[in-house]
Amino acid sequence: MRQSILFTKTRREAPKDEVSKNAILLTRAGFIHKEFAGVYSFLPLGLLVLKKIENIIRREMNILGGQEVELTALQDGDVWNKTGRWSDEVIDVWFKTKLKSGSDVGLAPTHEEPLTQLLSEYISSYRDLPLSVYQFQTKFRNELRSKSGILRGREFLMKDLYSFSRNEEEHDKFYEKVKSAYRNIFNQVGIGDSTYLTKASGGSFSKYSHEFQTIIEAGEDTIYITLEDKKEATNKEIEESNGRKEEKAIEVGNIFSLGTRFSEDLGLVFTDEAGVKNPVIMGSYGIGLSRLMGTVVEVLSDEKGIVWPKEIAPFQVHLLLLSEKAKDFADEVYKTLSSQGVEVLYDDRDLRAGEKFADADLIGIPMQIIIGEKAIESKMLEVKERKTGETKHETLDHIIEALKK
Amino acid sequence: MRQSILFTKTRREAPKDEVSKNAILLTRAGFIHKEFAGVYSFLPLGLLVLKKIENIIRREMNILGGQEVELTALQDGDVWNKTGRWSDEVIDVWFKTKLKSGSDVGLAPTHEEPLTQLLSEYISSYRDLPLSVYQFQTKFRNELRSKSGILRGREFLMKDLYSFSRNEEEHDKFYEKVKSAYRNIFNQVGIGDSTYLTKASGGSFSKYSHEFQTIIEAGEDTIYITLEDKKEATNKEIEESNGRKEEKAIEVGNIFSLGTRFSEDLGLVFTDEAGVKNPVIMGSYGIGLSRLMGTVVEVLSDEKGIVWPKEIAPFQVHLLLLSEKAKDFADEVYKTLSSQGVEVLYDDRDLRAGEKFADADLIGIPMQIIIGEKAIESKMLEVKERKTGETKHETLDHIIEALKK
Repeated sequence: MRQSILFTKTRREAPKDEVSKNAILLTRAGFIHKEFAGVYSFLPLGLLVLKKIENIIRREMNILGGQEVELTALQDGDVWNKTGRWSDEVIDVWFKTKLKSGSDVGLAPTHEEPLTQLLSEYISSYRDLPLSVYQFQTKFRNELRSKSGILRGREFLMKDLYSFSRNEEEHDKFYEKVKSAYRNIFNQVGIGDSTYLTKASGGSFSKYSHEFQTIIEAGEDTIYITLEDKKEATNKEIEESNGRKEEKAIEVGNIFSLGTRFSEDLGLVFTDEAGVKNPVIMGSYGIGLSRLMGTVVEVLSDEKGIVWPKEIAPFQVHLLLLSEKAKDFADEVYKTLSSQGVEVLYDDRDLRAGEKFADADLIGIPMQIIIGEKAIESKMLEVKERKTGETKHETLDHIIEALKK
Repeated sequence: MRQSILFTKTRREAPKDEVSKNAILLTRAGFIHKEFAGVYSFLPLGLLVLKKIENIIRREMNILGGQEVELTALQDGDVWNKTGRWSDEVIDVWFKTKLKSGSDVGLAPTHEEPLTQLLSEYISSYRDLPLSVYQFQTKFRNELRSKSGILRGREFLMKDLYSFSRNEEEHDKFYEKVKSAYRNIFNQVGIGDSTYLTKASGGSFSKYSHEFQTIIEAGEDTIYITLEDKKEATNKEIEESNGRKEEKAIEVGNIFSLGTRFSEDLGLVFTDEAGVKNPVIMGSYGIGLSRLMGTVVEVLSDEKGIVWPKEIAPFQVHLLLLSEKAKDFADEVYKTLSSQGVEVLYDDRDLRAGEKFADADLIGIPMQIIIGEKAIESKMLEVKERKTGETKHETLDHIIEALKK
């Protein structure tokens, strides 16, 4: 894409109403736009990152055998009344509104109830199980305060996966598989090294749950590292320190055993081989996509701006044209890269080199190709790695080959 | 995908609470699930269709040069107060709720206001224009009644495109381009022949607008065909009949000239070449994706069920195994097709042939491949076209070749 066409522009100054690193950098670089506290729109660059994260997660969910659906935000209170979670005292982040008819409806903060209800219309026999269902869906949570940028939104995109098993053994097997899938996801988005599988409270559903916690200064949680090499930890909420290393961290994923908490109340039962009716054993597994994107920014940025890992960068290459004389040459490079399927942001704007360098470092695309007058004759392109700042000179063929590896 | 794993099942009976053809067929075939009136979840088969429609539209939006964003559902009333559209008397389908702080927020029924406001932070010069921005985003509309299935939802996915031009000429040029793009879209999803470019009222924004109206019995609008060969019509709302052919139709797309209605109130201005500040000329262009999907069902179904056009069918091939003896052979066919990139729903369930035929016709995948015992030796596969019911016998290689054309 030609940057001269992209409608967003970078800003030098941090927005006055933001305190979090992720919101400051993502706003300055033109990835997101704040509508009001905790409610952010995604601009073209931001949406590209979000879609790449979505695709990484979808791949892992499909490997698990998950079936993708899309449930609704608007919720009828009746189904939530059956589990007692319609009450604002039980779920304190409900947004509620009314139909013209006067009926109360709510905006789903999570989807255990409607999905369990839905599946009760399709599941009846042991032959229908085990089963897992997931979605990418917008959640609404009426948070009292919201100052952490896209780490904690009042409206945000979430991947939620739910499992339905016949017995504890089957449930445990799937639960372990999700742990591995989540590990793969966090490795691919570039925060594997700082993300710990963390034993945490199971809330009202079970004794323990597991969280994936990523170490960041702005983290709301405190964890103790229990096994550094295996990247395991314990949440401070369930255990005393016992001399272990303490870190501030943010939950980027959680996996929960729900037992029969929802299936009993909502009548999700199956007939087993012996003809006996049993409630289905459930699990739920969440990843907030915008939170994950914000966490990557918190972990991987430096003083110059964002440093995207290549798997989720909005583009693979940021092509910078430094001299009008080299424009035809740079246009050719842009065309060649694009025709080879390389995703390129081409800074063809009429700006000084210093401004282009600063913008490129702020936006954080992993590879910069810098074209000045010299390149026209030498055909050697200056390639700069955003992360290290290291530069080298290479032919275009060489660069394309390296990108395709 | 193996149908034995797919959690949805077909139903023989129409759901008692549905009257519209689209909702009856899509529910019976397991594409959608009603949460309450006008609010439908998308099940695996339904989501596959919706994503295909989304990709067809996205391709056309990108050809127009549109930049994709994703704005939020939650809306601060302040920005809508500037245009006077926060009032329930002006927009009578608002859902409104409150933040914990007590502030009123609404669920966006459309996005002219927030996008115009957002762009006013980025657009300042004639060099920043023209420009177009689009999104696929969930809209909320508090409709008084909702009995038309997914044709008129209280929550639904919409593609909305907005254009920003420097003068009327530039605007008109883009407006004409959108007409062609929309025509391409309706042709690709299979309703081109029954869809008319229809002159309609411009509401409060301009004298006229244009709608794309598809002829269906359940249509809420009445149009007069003005040019049958060019597929042009006029909406009854703006003109007397004058002896022309009258049809019931549904609006599947609309294109609107907004003039400076929003840019003036929200301060979206640009400085022209002479240094003079002018408000930006705007247009908006909508397609409801779920409505479009429902319209395809209304137009293309027959007494046996849905007939998907191949471009938006959930799978390309429905593979039906009729005899346990042919299971290994059918498994091989399934593997070969899948490895060739063909999307296959494989009915490997332990059911009678008649039930499988009825299900396949109800679900409506365009090509059925039927495997019985004879095929094991002959290697000739029975291929049935869903639309015509015609069958022929072909080799697998031949089938794959035809699918790849």
